[in-house]
Amino acid sequence: MNKDNTVFVGNKPVMNYVLAVITQFNNGAEEVSIKARGKAISRAVDTAEISLNKFLDNVTKQEIITSTEVIDTESGQTNVSSIEILLRQG
Amino acid sequence: MNKDNTVFVGNKPVMNYVLAVITQFNNGAEEVSIKARGKAISRAVDTAEISLNKFLDNVTKQEIITSTEVIDTESGQTNVSSIEILLRQG
Repeated sequence: MNKDNTVFVGNKPVMNYVLAVITQFNNGAEEVSIKARGKAISRAVDTAEISLNKFLDNVTKQEIITSTEVIDTESGQTNVSSIEILLRQG
Repeated sequence: MNKDNTVFVGNKPVMNYVLAVITQFNNGAEEVSIKARGKAISRAVDTAEISLNKFLDNVTKQEIITSTEVIDTESGQTNVSSIEILLRQG
């Protein structure tokens, strides 16, 4: 999968990310990966659900992966949960 | 699966839910389902990750399901995302 087909979800309004996902599919992507860490995980799930329920026909959830990433902060290393939701055409 | 084997994640500190998951397995559960809606979804992922990485040997993520639920509020119906993370012994 092309790296461009990844949408990183952060703190912006959810519709920004929904639009990004739709745009990727409209540009011919077969798969789009939605990724987020920490508190943005909820918004990543919202992004996938809204995209699938309201905008994308013939696209399905292919896989959902959660993991733990180690992040460097000013006060040392810390663990943060992450999620990847893989949507696929067809 | 027994309904008692479900941990509903809300707004309490994450370790409360981790402890609940561990207790279920220690009481002999083969499967424990971690469920959350809306902003608590991030904490549900944290609960699963911390439980698996720090406390539970021989338990794996069996399945992760996301969905959209319709909720009645004072101002009418609204959609909310939900997640279910199924952990399984063995």
